[in-house]
Amino acid sequence: MPTITAINKTNTGNFFEDFSLGQSLRHATPRTISEGDVALYTALTGSRFALQSSDDFARALGFERAPIDDLLVFHMVFGKSVPDVSFNAVANLGYANGRFGVPVFPGDTLTTVSQVIGIKENSSGKTGVVYVNSVGRNQRGESVLDFVRWVMVNKRDEDAAAPEPSVPDLPGLVDPGDLIVPGVLQFTEYDDALAGSAARWEDYAPGERIDHAGGVTIEEAEHMMATRLYQNTAKVHFNQHAAGETRFGRRIVYGGHIISLARALSFNGLGNGCKLLAINGGRHVAPSFAGDTIYAWSEVLECQELAGRKDAGALRLRTLAVKDKACAGFPDRDSEGKFDPAVVLEFDYWVLIPRR
Amino acid sequence: MPTITAINKTNTGNFFEDFSLGQSLRHATPRTISEGDVALYTALTGSRFALQSSDDFARALGFERAPIDDLLVFHMVFGKSVPDVSFNAVANLGYANGRFGVPVFPGDTLTTVSQVIGIKENSSGKTGVVYVNSVGRNQRGESVLDFVRWVMVNKRDEDAAAPEPSVPDLPGLVDPGDLIVPGVLQFTEYDDALAGSAARWEDYAPGERIDHAGGVTIEEAEHMMATRLYQNTAKVHFNQHAAGETRFGRRIVYGGHIISLARALSFNGLGNGCKLLAINGGRHVAPSFAGDTIYAWSEVLECQELAGRKDAGALRLRTLAVKDKACAGFPDRDSEGKFDPAVVLEFDYWVLIPRR
Amino acid sequence: MPTITAINKTNTGNFFEDFSLGQSLRHATPRTISEGDVALYTALTGSRFALQSSDDFARALGFERAPIDDLLVFHMVFGKSVPDVSFNAVANLGYANGRFGVPVFPGDTLTTVSQVIGIKENSSGKTGVVYVNSVGRNQRGESVLDFVRWVMVNKRDEDAAAPEPSVPDLPGLVDPGDLIVPGVLQFTEYDDALAGSAARWEDYAPGERIDHAGGVTIEEAEHMMATRLYQNTAKVHFNQHAAGETRFGRRIVYGGHIISLARALSFNGLGNGCKLLAINGGRHVAPSFAGDTIYAWSEVLECQELAGRKDAGALRLRTLAVKDKACAGFPDRDSEGKFDPAVVLEFDYWVLIPRR
Repeated sequence: MPTITAINKTNTGNFFEDFSLGQSLRHATPRTISEGDVALYTALTGSRFALQSSDDFARALGFERAPIDDLLVFHMVFGKSVPDVSFNAVANLGYANGRFGVPVFPGDTLTTVSQVIGIKENSSGKTGVVYVNSVGRNQRGESVLDFVRWVMVNKRDEDAAAPEPSVPDLPGLVDPGDLIVPGVLQFTEYDDALAGSAARWEDYAPGERIDHAGGVTIEEAEHMMATRLYQNTAKVHFNQHAAGETRFGRRIVYGGHIISLARALSFNGLGNGCKLLAINGGRHVAPSFAGDTIYAWSEVLECQELAGRKDAGALRLRTLAVKDKACAGFPDRDSEGKFDPAVVLEFDYWVLIPRR
Repeated sequence: MPTITAINKTNTGNFFEDFSLGQSLRHATPRTISEGDVALYTALTGSRFALQSSDDFARALGFERAPIDDLLVFHMVFGKSVPDVSFNAVANLGYANGRFGVPVFPGDTLTTVSQVIGIKENSSGKTGVVYVNSVGRNQRGESVLDFVRWVMVNKRDEDAAAPEPSVPDLPGLVDPGDLIVPGVLQFTEYDDALAGSAARWEDYAPGERIDHAGGVTIEEAEHMMATRLYQNTAKVHFNQHAAGETRFGRRIVYGGHIISLARALSFNGLGNGCKLLAINGGRHVAPSFAGDTIYAWSEVLECQELAGRKDAGALRLRTLAVKDKACAGFPDRDSEGKFDPAVVLEFDYWVLIPRR
Repeated sequence: MPTITAINKTNTGNFFEDFSLGQSLRHATPRTISEGDVALYTALTGSRFALQSSDDFARALGFERAPIDDLLVFHMVFGKSVPDVSFNAVANLGYANGRFGVPVFPGDTLTTVSQVIGIKENSSGKTGVVYVNSVGRNQRGESVLDFVRWVMVNKRDEDAAAPEPSVPDLPGLVDPGDLIVPGVLQFTEYDDALAGSAARWEDYAPGERIDHAGGVTIEEAEHMMATRLYQNTAKVHFNQHAAGETRFGRRIVYGGHIISLARALSFNGLGNGCKLLAINGGRHVAPSFAGDTIYAWSEVLECQELAGRKDAGALRLRTLAVKDKACAGFPDRDSEGKFDPAVVLEFDYWVLIPRR
């Protein structure tokens, strides 16, 4: 029996020295988003925003039917980049400059292309940071999401030469003038009772803090199903046999699942914040594991008018996900900027919300 | 940094003193039911009734396609009422007078409105019982389900004055003459082999008992996914961090999930009982938890003809769900009316079944 | 209260003496496959083959839309046969001569009919082996899958007379000339980058071994949801209360779930092996349980041209699923033919793969 071994067909992912500035990565596995994905997203996160839940509600606002939840779009676009970008990532360090484009509906097919926009070896010589700008597009080539993330990636060979360091200049937030609001979406007929909240744009003020009150415990089956639904292949989420040998000894929950749980919890207090417009920044402060109970609270950072719109405005929110600690006390950074140890996520984003 | 706290935007649910007789509650989050919901319902319950499983089978009986399982409709309609009715419920005490209306198909959008039809403070002064009549409607305003449930709700303030007690006069069962059978549904071409049972209406007799034989163990991920699919937000199902402090120390399984498991198990013995027509009554005798194995058995209470129908009749069934105990011995109430401690559910309902 | 007990309505499944050579079994519960089933299959297995993931990718190859994954078809067809064939099975011994027919698309309705093609009592007198040929058909009566499996089934009565033994002569593999390749499927426009692999038919050679590298840990909720999705009712997968009394003390994972996990893992190394054409043979070497981490590797057995096709060829693969052991060392049979104790599945099949 011949014993030819085809190591080269098995994707071992890109290591730090495989990346170069300006490099373009066309990611695999285009995905047609379906009503099945929507149902699973609801079952896995508990999201209750009316616009994404009801075709009739969406039609009353001008859409042809209920759009796909923006975070489901985010996870699908993100997931495709994992085999090429973060298969060997040590950590997902941050997000910036994320802008949602045209809405996605069931039947649309998404693909993702990423470009390396920054690269810098760490002083340890064992890892480096790679900045990528990933753009998800639908079958017509229209952008559905454009965002930057940066990850710490292992080097294959510690002796490999360091590339010329280049760190992109990233905006701290998406300018309100750059937010994309679908023109067909009109809130004249918006029904607060069906939406589940009486609070509109005018009712929020910068500095306001909202405890989203609920808590949800994560199970292994749930976070793995979510992560597979997004065809995200990062090893750390799925393999207990290997994870048992790591410092955590556990599978790590995909950070995006925490973002989705926090967003779903935020319905209680922000039920009319019906659509994400942009991701200004985000940071996974600490890993989460099965058995953790996630709570969330939000701070209103800004209340902005939207050009040409009298019917809706934008809220800039900073949502914190917290584990095993209720948020009545708004666990946050301390005076030295150090996070309360229960905080697992800080997420800064713009949402669309009807005006009176 | 301002520290405005917007407690009033966070829904803390209605407490007993927030309810009043005749009050109407228009619930949030309309929901378009999809094929994705159907697939999840199958995966979470194991239901095998042919009418709801196959478009072709349904077409042979006159429907345009497979209808949504009646209990999935029940859960969706029920789920919407939770944030307003039972967010602060101590217990879901019972169901009565539930009548399924027009069939629901994928693409239909459901909303729920409830009316308070009874209210009575408990002698403890700490809680009270609220009776609500919830009506689920499709996008054309047609009733898909109309039922009564009553729940024990905490008072916010024990010193609040008790309302004038009013307890509705609820029927012990839905009159067979009031059952709604879709006119297009005709059983002339009904295929017993595809349906999985040779037993038709004539083969059942009052007093007959049927052991459904199988047993299914509940996992945390499953009951939480089911409950979130229904956008049911009751806190007791999701939060282990908080549940650890309760007398059970565990998350409680949504009682409706037990009804669905019992119904799915009942296929074995009642495979032609293809559609629920009404819910006469129901009682969650004891809570269920992850790890429990649910068995079920049924007693035939009545066999009724249906006005104007030679092709189908109705069976009134009393199905008991039992945990960690096989049902060959039909665990039931004892001579004093006290339930076998293994019983978790008693459910009294009408099903539609073909005649010869 | 009358206490009529209707044992005869409860399906206790067929025992060995209920089977006879030539017997035809028309199985229950026709199933319309939906986008919801597809989403769940993705979430439960992590499959990433582009042809089944994207309508656009499928259209570029000539299909009207993305077809249903062949293994999802297999599970659906198989599942229907369980209540009649393997409800009382001790073990699922093997598969042979499985040939996929016309592709299945969302909206198609599948039914299964099986014929007993062999029967042989075991020397113990307590069990016997039943060989069935199961054929799954769509709503037009076209075969979507035709395969043989054999199972060891308990006798109801050990004293029942043994039938005349008859063991079918089963082929060791499906002849490449008998493989059914949809004529509309053309690989001229095949996009390797979107598919996620640069390796085509010409790049594989008999004897080559491929480590699929990843590993995935199974949870109880996942394998039960998968098995219920397929409406497979075999008791051993669902009931911990009863399983606690067995020699394993655990629920056993449906063997087909292991096949699906191995196939999904095989994407890494065989990403262009876009469609199963046939199942030559398969064997569940050992049971799997929740908590097991499944790895996989494959050996290329044959590389065959396909009659009339210049754009695609067939690879005969032998994929092994292995538990709690990475596959860099290709755990296999030893020189005496005995499997490495970590191996749980050996699966021999033909896949379709584009040529250059």
